[in-house]
Amino acid sequence: MSLLVVGSVALDSVETPTRRRDDVLGGSAVFFSYAARFFSPVYLLGAVGEDWPAEHTRMLRDRGIDTTGLQVIPGGKTFRWRGKYMPNMNDRETLEVHLNVLETFDPVLSPELRKAKFLFLANGTPALQTKVLDQIDAPELVVADTMDLWINIQRDELLRVLRRIDGLVLNDCEAKLLAGDENLVRAGQAVRKMGPKFVILKKGEHGAMFFGEHETYVLPAFPTPDVIDPTGAGDSFAGAMMGYLTEQGNFEPATLKQAMAYGIVVASFTVEDFSLDRLQKISRPEIDRRMAEYHRMMSF
Amino acid sequence: MSLLVVGSVALDSVETPTRRRDDVLGGSAVFFSYAARFFSPVYLLGAVGEDWPAEHTRMLRDRGIDTTGLQVIPGGKTFRWRGKYMPNMNDRETLEVHLNVLETFDPVLSPELRKAKFLFLANGTPALQTKVLDQIDAPELVVADTMDLWINIQRDELLRVLRRIDGLVLNDCEAKLLAGDENLVRAGQAVRKMGPKFVILKKGEHGAMFFGEHETYVLPAFPTPDVIDPTGAGDSFAGAMMGYLTEQGNFEPATLKQAMAYGIVVASFTVEDFSLDRLQKISRPEIDRRMAEYHRMMSF
Repeated sequence: MSLLVVGSVALDSVETPTRRRDDVLGGSAVFFSYAARFFSPVYLLGAVGEDWPAEHTRMLRDRGIDTTGLQVIPGGKTFRWRGKYMPNMNDRETLEVHLNVLETFDPVLSPELRKAKFLFLANGTPALQTKVLDQIDAPELVVADTMDLWINIQRDELLRVLRRIDGLVLNDCEAKLLAGDENLVRAGQAVRKMGPKFVILKKGEHGAMFFGEHETYVLPAFPTPDVIDPTGAGDSFAGAMMGYLTEQGNFEPATLKQAMAYGIVVASFTVEDFSLDRLQKISRPEIDRRMAEYHRMMSF
Repeated sequence: MSLLVVGSVALDSVETPTRRRDDVLGGSAVFFSYAARFFSPVYLLGAVGEDWPAEHTRMLRDRGIDTTGLQVIPGGKTFRWRGKYMPNMNDRETLEVHLNVLETFDPVLSPELRKAKFLFLANGTPALQTKVLDQIDAPELVVADTMDLWINIQRDELLRVLRRIDGLVLNDCEAKLLAGDENLVRAGQAVRKMGPKFVILKKGEHGAMFFGEHETYVLPAFPTPDVIDPTGAGDSFAGAMMGYLTEQGNFEPATLKQAMAYGIVVASFTVEDFSLDRLQKISRPEIDRRMAEYHRMMSF
């Protein structure tokens, strides 16, 4: 089994009520692949510019992430995002976005990547997601993320993508927007009827909801008092989830629920520091210890 | 074992984005006692005015709630609340409050009520909660609710109450306000250090969090697509929880968690119609069926 993620590789600048960091390692594909690697090998497909510090690529590669699909665009600049978190650390404001190399990023899958069985399309234009879907050979499981921007300005293209994927992961507000319904349960069910076999709503500090054909459930977030920077929580949630599914080699209902729980647990580590700083300090045993605690928390 | 609730008995007027009801049966003590009665006998202490429809008292009594402590104040008017829910059905605006008889409500416990072993002080002034605490003989478990108003204008009186109770139930925003901390986990732990042995934060559609000396946990809300009117969800949560604890006759950690889960399940019924309308259509087997579903939802 092999797992491929296509998404952004970024330099993030983050402001929180008490701290600030500039130009730290970020991007959906980075958080995703780092979280996935706790469970399975992962291939990263993305693009950066000439300003990209090579040490980041080395670090990812040293941790077992296959970065041969990470193109350095000559003369290009790396995607940059600057955001500011509100005091509740759940809501944020985007202060700056510089798409840079992502503006013209044209994902080309090598013969090896085309054979990936598990595929995650991180947030990106529906056109870009479609290009990847057109190249992949015979994936067993395709899951995608999206955002309010594409729901608002490329709805039809997005709806076509939804009919070609198995699972969709998106934020609660985005699901409400896409479904036109303020009730999360109805919104999740409505989005599922747009095509995906399952839909997962990310609710930030309130956890995640699952909508399948035969079941709907909610899993709360793991309650951590040490929220330093929530950036990447959603992408590392998806990474751990897909990594676990790849490790298990199936996506049966019971495996999916376990995978979501792993996603929640890994995301709870992500928010405990900036960038990948917290994730770089843990390994599978810490994750499994917190997973046991999470499991206990919900047993009654 | 016996359970006593002291709180408001009201005529509510509720506006939602699509519906509206005027002067329906409501109030914290009413939702609480109706939810509690699925599990144990309950005594209701409160006051209404001469405008109070006697049929409401008859209905409560017919359902096994002891209403001998419900005083009808001569010349008085019943407490009235009018509120409007936002499209997300989680946030609301209070449009009108008429305290009426609650302005001078002086709770007097009969010799029988003084012997209650389980006591719930629904939201009310700290002075009123103190008066009840001064009269009760030897309660085994006292749990109270409060609100932002008292946190803002009677903080010292409230802090004195917190040192005399075993448990506090309050909304997430109120806990943040009381603790002066926007992180829910830290806020809950801080409030617990103000006196109560345990603190339960109600998060509306996102469930509830528990903070004890040795454990912190979150239970998600039961996901219902049929949210008609959330009024009384918090009070029926507390009622089912306290009713179950009274039925079990203890408040060991495992019993408390089970009790919270029952609270969440009963609250999910409450929101499915206005006033007590949905609760009046169910009995213990429906609750236990949904409880089994809730349990399954969180098993992985």
